[in-house]
Amino acid sequence: MDQFLHDQPITPRTDVEKQAVVNRLKRIEGQVRGIQKMVEDDRYCVDILVQISAISAALKKVGFQVAERHTKHCVSHAIKSGEGDAAIDELMDVIKQFSK
Amino acid sequence: MDQFLHDQPITPRTDVEKQAVVNRLKRIEGQVRGIQKMVEDDRYCVDILVQISAISAALKKVGFQVAERHTKHCVSHAIKSGEGDAAIDELMDVIKQFSK
Amino acid sequence: MDQFLHDQPITPRTDVEKQAVVNRLKRIEGQVRGIQKMVEDDRYCVDILVQISAISAALKKVGFQVAERHTKHCVSHAIKSGEGDAAIDELMDVIKQFSK
Amino acid sequence: MDQFLHDQPITPRTDVEKQAVVNRLKRIEGQVRGIQKMVEDDRYCVDILVQISAISAALKKVGFQVAERHTKHCVSHAIKSGEGDAAIDELMDVIKQFSK
Repeated sequence: MDQFLHDQPITPRTDVEKQAVVNRLKRIEGQVRGIQKMVEDDRYCVDILVQISAISAALKKVGFQVAERHTKHCVSHAIKSGEGDAAIDELMDVIKQFSK
Repeated sequence: MDQFLHDQPITPRTDVEKQAVVNRLKRIEGQVRGIQKMVEDDRYCVDILVQISAISAALKKVGFQVAERHTKHCVSHAIKSGEGDAAIDELMDVIKQFSK
Repeated sequence: MDQFLHDQPITPRTDVEKQAVVNRLKRIEGQVRGIQKMVEDDRYCVDILVQISAISAALKKVGFQVAERHTKHCVSHAIKSGEGDAAIDELMDVIKQFSK
Repeated sequence: MDQFLHDQPITPRTDVEKQAVVNRLKRIEGQVRGIQKMVEDDRYCVDILVQISAISAALKKVGFQVAERHTKHCVSHAIKSGEGDAAIDELMDVIKQFSK
């Protein structure tokens, strides 16, 4: 998947929307830094794995949020314009990759 | 899983081992910051989702690296000391959580 | 998720479509029976786990095939009828469950 | 992963153990047949996807049961015999494949 159907979402993200996603990502970034400290402090492996699982779950949540908005805006727009199949194929491909 | 069998790995991580894991995590941290920028630049949703998938895959890789070391040191030590079952149950629980 | 938006797909599956999905499922059914035999023959655990992974992968493939058709027919129809949001929420919910 | 370390588990499965796994697999086989009927009856896609998710979850459960027994018997035995690393590498490889 090297090329995408578009460069930008069909409906631009509002500042409020951007901020909501960025805030979640900042929290994830902080969690990743937290694990670095756990490793440096030589913390128990299982404790670290539980934290990694928490980050994976948080990332999945952001991903589904992005996918939902994408479907409600970009894919819906494509469907209404009679170009739904390409948009749906692209969506399914990325969800397959994402849900591995 | 609120309490773990130990606070630290049975064999302390060497500086080289710590550095290897921390380096991978720093790269992941950078990737998470990269997505924040993509959101702020209002980049295409599918492009963002592909990046999120890449981070998830990188996190899984670190997780399996930690799990492998854990099994080779902590779990192996527990097995040799006749306390393998509790260690294996703890390992399986965290892997279940991790592979969701 | 106890109630669904519909009882049937908006576009009925053709006999050819039904047969294609049923054939895949019959193959999966045969693989599940194959593992029963492996267990009865006391085959090596890792060998069994590899087969279970293969079935999981095959099931995911069928699932994505069903999800794709669903999006191209039912969800697309809902979007064109101005009822896209409910259909997309339902789709996202089931994909979340499915990709656990 | 074409060749495995062994052909059989180090401790043979008892009849009770075999029966427990086979019973779970028979239930899964029945669920797969149930989906075939749903497809033939042209049932709603999301309904089918929920059932596929249930089977995936049931398969994962059997897999973890097999992996746990494997670790408690075969891997533990290998560790006590000083051949732990190969057994742990094999275990991690199959769990990676399994948790995709």
